[in-house]
Formats: sequence, C-alpha cells, structure tokens
Amino acid sequence: MASLEPGELDSLVRKVSLRVDAPSLDDTTSDWERLQRTLRAHFPGRLFHIGLGALRELGPALRQGDWQVTVTLAEGEGALSVIRVEAGDTTDRAFGLAVDVGTTTVSVELLDLNRGVGLGSCLEYNGQIPHGTDVTSRLLHAEKRKEGLAQLREAVLKTFNEMIADLAAEHGVRPDEIVALVVAGNTIMAHLFLGVDPTSIRREPYVPGTTAFPILTAREVGLAIHEAATVYLLPAVSGYVGGDITAGLLATGIADQEPLSILIDIGTNGETVLGNREWLVACSGSAGSAFEGCGLEWGMNATAGAIERVWVEDCHIGYQTIGGDKPSGICGSGLIDALGSFLLGGIIDRSARIQLGAPGVRQGQSYPEVVLASAAETAVGQDIVLTQANIENLLRDKAALYAGARILLSNVGLEFDLVERVLIAGSFGQSLDVERAVLIGLLPDIPRQRIRFIGNSSLAGARRALLSRRAWRRAGEIASSITCMELTAEPRYFDEYTGALFLPHTNGDLFPTVKARLEGGVGP
Amino acid sequence: MASLEPGELDSLVRKVSLRVDAPSLDDTTSDWERLQRTLRAHFPGRLFHIGLGALRELGPALRQGDWQVTVTLAEGEGALSVIRVEAGDTTDRAFGLAVDVGTTTVSVELLDLNRGVGLGSCLEYNGQIPHGTDVTSRLLHAEKRKEGLAQLREAVLKTFNEMIADLAAEHGVRPDEIVALVVAGNTIMAHLFLGVDPTSIRREPYVPGTTAFPILTAREVGLAIHEAATVYLLPAVSGYVGGDITAGLLATGIADQEPLSILIDIGTNGETVLGNREWLVACSGSAGSAFEGCGLEWGMNATAGAIERVWVEDCHIGYQTIGGDKPSGICGSGLIDALGSFLLGGIIDRSARIQLGAPGVRQGQSYPEVVLASAAETAVGQDIVLTQANIENLLRDKAALYAGARILLSNVGLEFDLVERVLIAGSFGQSLDVERAVLIGLLPDIPRQRIRFIGNSSLAGARRALLSRRAWRRAGEIASSITCMELTAEPRYFDEYTGALFLPHTNGDLFPTVKARLEGGVGP
Repeated sequence: MASLEPGELDSLVRKVSLRVDAPSLDDTTSDWERLQRTLRAHFPGRLFHIGLGALRELGPALRQGDWQVTVTLAEGEGALSVIRVEAGDTTDRAFGLAVDVGTTTVSVELLDLNRGVGLGSCLEYNGQIPHGTDVTSRLLHAEKRKEGLAQLREAVLKTFNEMIADLAAEHGVRPDEIVALVVAGNTIMAHLFLGVDPTSIRREPYVPGTTAFPILTAREVGLAIHEAATVYLLPAVSGYVGGDITAGLLATGIADQEPLSILIDIGTNGETVLGNREWLVACSGSAGSAFEGCGLEWGMNATAGAIERVWVEDCHIGYQTIGGDKPSGICGSGLIDALGSFLLGGIIDRSARIQLGAPGVRQGQSYPEVVLASAAETAVGQDIVLTQANIENLLRDKAALYAGARILLSNVGLEFDLVERVLIAGSFGQSLDVERAVLIGLLPDIPRQRIRFIGNSSLAGARRALLSRRAWRRAGEIASSITCMELTAEPRYFDEYTGALFLPHTNGDLFPTVKARLEGGVGP
Repeated sequence: MASLEPGELDSLVRKVSLRVDAPSLDDTTSDWERLQRTLRAHFPGRLFHIGLGALRELGPALRQGDWQVTVTLAEGEGALSVIRVEAGDTTDRAFGLAVDVGTTTVSVELLDLNRGVGLGSCLEYNGQIPHGTDVTSRLLHAEKRKEGLAQLREAVLKTFNEMIADLAAEHGVRPDEIVALVVAGNTIMAHLFLGVDPTSIRREPYVPGTTAFPILTAREVGLAIHEAATVYLLPAVSGYVGGDITAGLLATGIADQEPLSILIDIGTNGETVLGNREWLVACSGSAGSAFEGCGLEWGMNATAGAIERVWVEDCHIGYQTIGGDKPSGICGSGLIDALGSFLLGGIIDRSARIQLGAPGVRQGQSYPEVVLASAAETAVGQDIVLTQANIENLLRDKAALYAGARILLSNVGLEFDLVERVLIAGSFGQSLDVERAVLIGLLPDIPRQRIRFIGNSSLAGARRALLSRRAWRRAGEIASSITCMELTAEPRYFDEYTGALFLPHTNGDLFPTVKARLEGGVGP
C-alpha cells in the first residue's frame, strides 16, 4: 500500500500557531480582518471563512493569549475555514478520526493530526445489524417504516459515538480535541450515516441521493466530538460503488500507477475495481457478509479469541486463535483456511458438501456439520461448529466475488494472467493464507507474488485523505474517473457465478496449480 | 430614497421551480448531481452547494413531485446554496425579513421574496434595554457579568422571535416559510445579536471582533424561522460606524450619486456620513437615545397614541397624536416639535431653561417642568410632562449630532451650504417638521428643499439588500470605501459641542433665518 510521502503531511484540518499584530490607534482593523491578514501571509492566494463558534472565541483568545493564538483550519468548499481559536500555542493537541463505515463492521482510527500518526483503532459490528444484515434489508427497513431511516442513522451514530468515546479515553484525548473526521463507506452506509434517504438505490435505475457529499460539521451530523469538527465523506461512484472503493484506490495507488491491478474488497458488497492510472472499471457483487463472520452462528470479528487459522492433520482439526486465547468464534481468515483445509482433508467435497465420517464431522439437525472446537476447549462453553448452510453461504460469496472479477476482466478483453497486482482488501484478520484462498477459488491461480492482502483499504484511504489535502482532492478525481458495470445486467454473469459454485471452479483449467494439487493429493 | 429599479428584483434567497430530467438506466446520475445539472442551465457559471437538510429532502421531493421541484436558493460565500427542496411548485410562498437592530428600537419588515413587496412591519424596544440604555452600558453589562453577553444575546433574540411570530401570524405566513433575514445594525448590536464579544470596542484602540460577518443559518443564530433560513448581516465600517450606516448609504444612493450629501442618523449613536460616489467620511456621535424617546419618563416609540406634533397657541399647549388616540407618551418628532414650539412660545429660553410662569409650566420636584397633557385627557391617567432634565437630554443629543456633522465638514474643508442634500434618518415618527428641527439647531439653516426626512434608512437598506444580490454585493464595497473619524480625538469637537448647547447655537450667524425669526418674534 502506498504510504504517505515525506512532506505530504498536510492534513485536511490542522492547527496553526500564529502571532497576530496587536492593534493600535493607527491600525484599528477588526480582529477577524487582522487574523485574515496574518493567515494570508501563511497561505497566500487562499480565501478564509470563519465559523460562528470560532468568531465568538476570537476576540477573547487574542487578548488572553496576548496576540498569540492557535487557529484550527479546515479545508472547506473553496475556502479555508477557521473552526476554532485558542489562546497561546496548543498545536500539540489536534486529533482526527479516520472511519470506515461498512455494512457489517465499523472501524475507527484515532490520529494525531500534527504528527500524522495513528494512535490506535477499533472495530465493532455496525449497530444497524438488528435492522438487517445486508444493504438490501437495511434499505427495506428504511422504506417500510416511518422511523426506519432515523433508526438506522441513530444506530450507526451510537456505534460511532461509543467507539470514539472509548478510543479517546484510551489515548488520553478529550472528545472536543477531535476536530476532523473522514468517512469512507459504501454509498448506502454514507446515506444512512447522514440520514439521507437511500431507498432509490434499490429500484431501477438504482440512483443514489448523491455521490459527492457536502462538507459538514460534527454538530450537524450528530457526532460527539468538537461541535465544529469538520466531517468529510469520501465521494462515491454510484449507488453500489461507494466511497470505500474510492478510499481503497487512494490507499493502494492503483489509480496513480502504471501496473494493471485489481482490487477486491471482500466486504458485505464485494466490490471489485480493475485498472491503472489510465482507466478504471468497477462492479459491486451481490456477495454477503459471510467472510466478515456475519450470518454464521460462530462468525466473529478478527479480535482476540477468533479462530484465524485452521488445519487438518492426522484426522484431527487444528486451529489457532488471535492472541492465543480460548476460541469464541471464527473470523474471515479462519473461514478461508477452514474451507481450504476441509477440502484438502476430505471433510468437504468439491461441491462443498460435508462428508459424514470425515474428521470432526457429525450429523447436525438436518445436515452434517463440522466441529471446529468442542465446548470444553472454548471460551463460550459450547461447541464451535460450521454447518452445511454456513459453508454454502461462504461458497456463494466466494463465487460472487470471483465471477464479478471475471466479468470485469472479460468486458475489457483481459484475463487474470495479465493482471500484475491482485490486492485483497477486508477486515477479516491479519493472517490470510493466500494459498488457501486460491485453493478454494476465491483468488485467481496466478503467480502468488502478485497477490497481496492489504487489510482494510477503506480505512487506510480515509486516513490518507485526512492527512493530505492533495489526497482528498485526488479522491474526487478518482471517483469521477471510474466506470461502473452492473453485474446483474451482464448476460454472462449467471454462468460465471454458477461455474464458481465449486471448489475451486467447474473449469479446472482456470486453476492449473490447484488442479494438479488436488488430483495429486485428494480424490474427486 | 432610491427605489429598487425594475428588473433589479433578484433577492438573496429565492425559490426556483425546476423540472429535472428523470433518471434512466442510461443516465443514473445521482439526484444531487442531476439537480445541479438543471441548476447550471439556469445559472451558468455558478457553483452550487447543498445543505444537509435540503439533501435529506431532495430524493423524496423529486419522486413525490414527479421530477418537478421547488428549490430555495441562497446566495452563499462563493456558491449558490440549496437550503430547501419541496415537491411541486411552491414558488408563491417565499418570505424574508429585513431587520434593523438598533440600540433602542428594533424594526422588522416581512417581505414577499417573489413579488419584492413588503407585507408589513413592526417596531419594538430592544429587549436589552433593562441591561442598559446606551451602547456603553451594554458593553459594561457584557464585560462585568459572566453571563452578560449571553443575556444580551438572548434578550434581543427574544425581541426578534416575538416580533417575527406576531408579524408572520398577522400576515398568514408560517415561520418556516421565512427563508431569509438581512440584518442592519450598529456594530455593537450586530456583535450582541451573534453572541460575539464586543467589549474590545469600548477600549482604546476600539477594535471590533469583525466588520464583515459570515453568512449564517437561522438555526445557528437562534431565530425561530426555517432552520436553514440564511442570515446576512450588512457589513460594518468600524466599532462605532455599523452596518446600519452601510444600509443607509445603500438605501439613499449617496455612495452611487454625484451630489454631495450628508446622512444624519438620529439614533442612539447619532452617526453621520458625508460624501458622494467619489468619497465618504463618517463619524459616530456620543448622542444618546433621547430623540427615540428613551430615558425620558414619557418618551415612546412612534406608535398609536404617541404625541407627534406640539404647538403653543393662545397661552396653551396643543398636540396631535398618532392615530388621534388619547396620548400615552411622546415620540421623536413630537420632542423636536416640543423644543421648537417651547422656544417660540417662551416656555424655554435659548439655554433651554424652563421659564416659570410660561404656559403649561409648573414647579416640579426640584426644577420646573412642562405639562403636555393632563391626566384627564391621557390614555394613562397621569400627566404627560417634560422635565428640565428631559429637555437637557434632548439638548445634549442635538448638540452632539450637529457638532459631529460640523467636524466632518470642516475636516474636508467644507461648510453646510455646499451640501446639496441633507438626509435625516431615524424611526422617530413620520411627521417631522423640518422648520422646527432647524429652529432648535438640530439641522443646519440651509435652503429647506435640500433637507429630507427619510425614515428608517437602516431598515430600507436591509430590505434593499434582501431583494437584490447586486445591492448586497455593493454593501461590501461601500463599507470598505468609508473613512471613519474619531470625534473624541478631534481637538475642536468640544468647542463645537459646547457651541451647540444653545438654541439654535451660540453662533447665531450659523442660523441666519432662525436668528431673524427669533429676533423678530421672541425676545432674548
């Protein structure tokens, strides 16, 4: 992932310590004109705006600080906006938040805006989940109930405000010292976060309320940070390709570099982008959130106690948890590992049917199921299992992702082997085993060094925009340069999808190394 | 007063009825981009912004109105801002307020923004008066008490909100149909209205917080109209020459025309501006609010029941009230008339001392006083009187106003007889007798046709800015073209002031026609 270049630290909101000329009878210019005079010297050619709160602080701060003040400046629409004025030099206390609002999980990172460094981050399930696990059910909730939209907005705000309070407390930061927030999220999540009706996205012709969002204040949005803190949402591309993808492109540099790359975001919507600095095409799959652990009885976030690695050895299923704790569930990387090792170990066949008699398998209520960890060894006092239904969920999601990427490629007349970089984004754990992901047909069978797991690129893009005005401006250019494809309108999509409902694929030639391995090691 | 030219109706906030192209699978642009496309066709070359409230209304309104919507557009800082979206055509319901916030009185006019006409207006005392009758005592209140600034802000907001509610109800307008407000006020009133600390204006070097105010929303300011209604404050010139004077110049056209003119605002601060389209100089007197009826036991606003004319005939004091009602007090025009007729009728001498034995005069507690109306004939069941202290108040205010104008003239090497227009602004009644105002030395003794009473020019300027974007922009240019003079820094000011503490003046040659009249009719 492209990192912030030295000297690029130029955050969207920053504090500047200024010495302002004191007035005299020969120079009776007002406080605000006087401050602008000083600002113009620092930021030539810029226009300045002042918020009402800052205007109220200005006079007392100038006099209390004996004409030495710290001004918090936010990049606005056309002007630099003064959002806060403090007496003296307080530049060492300026904090911002980078935020990824996903359908299933929400990530927040706290950053020191002056040093350009992250102080810590946290990940929680989106508080909207009780109103539906995927975007379609959320849209239905917003549409069917009078208070539905408000409920969804309040639910995600509650998640954010709790996460922010915890994160701030943990790092000794007062919430009112947080003066900026950059949000990356899919288009529907961005709408719900602002309380803007997204329901038109669900119906043909799938039009969102907006793809470019106004710059707002925390007070307008309802966030419990400094009331004049500036809230930026990364621009979306369409109703189904959102600011999280713009953020991913910003974070990876795909849109600025020569190599042909593909970015696959294994989130609830499974967006895929293909291209380089010349052109970009994107699509959004109808993948669910199985790889984020959602909708599975024992699925969980990639936090302590999550099973992140799974193997089958000597007729026994082994696992490793994050932090080495007793297991309390299984996260995305564990699920990919599980599918792969189950296939290798004969626990499932290539149609993903669980085989009775194989290691760890027992008869469940209607279908067989696999016991990953028995009650005695778990933190929850119950068996942690994967059912046939769970495995079929995973199979459908991986098929949707792979089929989407194939359609994208074939629409521009390319194959996977011409792609120089395959970047896999998602917040499903740090220890993704690329070999296993190829084995199950989630990732293409290309030279492994071309495949890179990059973690949460949406969050990384939000962080990058927060720390660099240039990156923020670039995000707008990137979003408007992407061409979207509607998978459901593609006649070949169904065939591609059906072919991928197999491990790794019905067309074995697409996975030559896997084919060789399976034919060598495992019977049909 | 220059009136709005035909075709100039182009209000700062207006409603526009738009037909937006419906989306299709071939044109899936978002609602907001789609609306901007339509707006660009109507307002080529402009940038557009949308407020969060309007963004929330947009999608539902477009679909409910079958792609026919009414958009409320407000002139912003650089962009046209969409502040409201409604389904269908609601352009016939768009209202705005022009407001004059004076130290003593507050005027509000309700306007139909589409037709460019005033529907009605009202005048009330500023609710801050209990915290001090002049700007200095208000500044002290803001400075001395922790909650002083907040109290002053809330007091004037309460006055406004009550006036607005009454005015709206009277004209069948819902408060949320009011989408714009333009405020003209002296610098200190503008600061207090926004809750911005004005106390630095009181101390050398008399620097205000700002002279140019950000464009705000009713919600930020605390006004009970549409929450996204846009609030504009006319720019001030200095701590003591405010947006009310900018408004006065806008209303009178002085700054755009050839004739050398002087504008005297007989308000609490007694500002005077001299100049034409080439140059403008201004000063602020230390006049009180006696001519607005403030600080006098029986002073009142120019409303029904106020004595507006006074005469002395056959050893008897006669009067006329506004609306012909029983008197309940005396307003500005009545006070000027009273001083003049008392002088002519021998009730006061040229030092303004009340003469015992003259018509209507009786001995008061310490000094003589004049009974204007006896209890039996008043609406309040008490005698309406003017005391010696009242008359001295009026004398000091008229001396300050005249002396200010004289200093302004002499600083540019001119005399009153070269001034082509003397415009007298104030909200002290409609029936000002110019002859009487000259008689007492409030106005200069020049050909009477050059003198014009123009009413509340601050309110008229606010109205003009509200109805014309060109006028609003011109206000900024005017404010920055004015040179301010500090009267207290002028060595000759005290002499001028002392000379004017006489009726009409110690130097009778300045008032040749008055001198002739007094020497003919009234003894020394």
